[in-house]
Amino acid sequence: MTYCVAMRLEAGLLFASDSRTNAGIDHIASFRKMHLFEQPDERLIVLLSAGNLATTQSVVSLLRQRVDQDRPNLRNVTSMYDAAVLVGTTSKEVYARDGCYQGAGQSVDFGGDFLLGGQIRGEAPRLFQIYSPGNFIEATFDTPYFQIGESKYGKPIIDRVVRHHTSLIEAAKCTLISFDSTLRSNLSVGLPIDMLLYQANSFCQAKPQRIDQDDPYFHLLQKGWGEGLKRVFARLPNASWFEPEAKKE
Amino acid sequence: MTYCVAMRLEAGLLFASDSRTNAGIDHIASFRKMHLFEQPDERLIVLLSAGNLATTQSVVSLLRQRVDQDRPNLRNVTSMYDAAVLVGTTSKEVYARDGCYQGAGQSVDFGGDFLLGGQIRGEAPRLFQIYSPGNFIEATFDTPYFQIGESKYGKPIIDRVVRHHTSLIEAAKCTLISFDSTLRSNLSVGLPIDMLLYQANSFCQAKPQRIDQDDPYFHLLQKGWGEGLKRVFARLPNASWFEPEAKKE
Repeated sequence: MTYCVAMRLEAGLLFASDSRTNAGIDHIASFRKMHLFEQPDERLIVLLSAGNLATTQSVVSLLRQRVDQDRPNLRNVTSMYDAAVLVGTTSKEVYARDGCYQGAGQSVDFGGDFLLGGQIRGEAPRLFQIYSPGNFIEATFDTPYFQIGESKYGKPIIDRVVRHHTSLIEAAKCTLISFDSTLRSNLSVGLPIDMLLYQANSFCQAKPQRIDQDDPYFHLLQKGWGEGLKRVFARLPNASWFEPEAKKE
Repeated sequence: MTYCVAMRLEAGLLFASDSRTNAGIDHIASFRKMHLFEQPDERLIVLLSAGNLATTQSVVSLLRQRVDQDRPNLRNVTSMYDAAVLVGTTSKEVYARDGCYQGAGQSVDFGGDFLLGGQIRGEAPRLFQIYSPGNFIEATFDTPYFQIGESKYGKPIIDRVVRHHTSLIEAAKCTLISFDSTLRSNLSVGLPIDMLLYQANSFCQAKPQRIDQDDPYFHLLQKGWGEGLKRVFARLPNASWFEPEAKKE
């Protein structure tokens, strides 16, 4: 499994991904799911991947080996929309090559899901979610974030906190708490977390953070959040409608 | 969709279920998913259902119309284990009758999932999760709760709070918060919530609570929890590793 989040906020873009992959619960490995395509001062494109690792790795490899070829590629497309089309097309290409296999009674899902965000000079930052069939949707003011992979455990906290105007650093705090909830509930999502914050219009070199099990800030958030939740919970009153029955004992 | 939770704690049993069913997003209805089989002073058996409504309603109807027949039924089985076997067998019977339909290109899931808990005199309270194929598992000291239906959004808070020794009234508070998170994230889970707390060895008449949109306690929890989370979140520090980049702007 996988958990990836990306946000398009007023202040810029946020990307985060876990690193655990598994082919069955007895075959677990660590792979980076955040892929950068940069051209300093001109564009930053970030791709997060989930789903079939063979498919998503192939898509990333093809996107990389084509950046120097004379065809539409992630270095020469002039809009993030065109970048999304390119990723979708490449995903369909890999699926057409590898996805026709019918195992002996085995159902294999060859699909890959992607979050693609970034900024190309001349445009504002944009963020897309690209589905297995290669089609995609774009984040808007009302829905500033997307998730792929194991999204449910970590969604409530994002829904409560993140809005279009949330600052990048607050969004990063919220995202790490969202990862904490997910890591606790699903063993197939695992550390380290790769996180990248991009300030709109900065076009500066990307400096992804790698958050592993010894990261002091992540520890502090885990502890503070867990204790804080328990404190809020303890202070909330109990229902009165059970008391009469309790007294009977 | 559906969300049901049941807990087997030191103090007794807790059951909670939402009331929304849907056959497609354009066909939403309200059905009670909590079914009681009582014999005052002798047994209380509670069945929560999720999955295909036709299947689960049939299972409940058959269990009900057989309580007066001269065969194993929920009024004469001598253990909760035998009650679980009975529900599993009845579920298989309905599936064998209705589940063979192959729609024209449509894939219909005829399966039903159940949580079955209760106490029969001579035994401690017990709780089972019964799967579509009719097999089942029992709650233990280490895993005191089960969920069926849309379980993920509301799981993290239960995992943080509920232990075997948690009191029923605290577990009820936690369960309602878990429902709040689920209701916010999945429109196919809906009010009213049916909730039943059963004190171990009380064998008293069950008094389920129905919590609808006007319930003042549920309102208070929703508000207090939401505000509390935001307060905890606001007090947690921001990451220091983003500050240098922020200063550049």
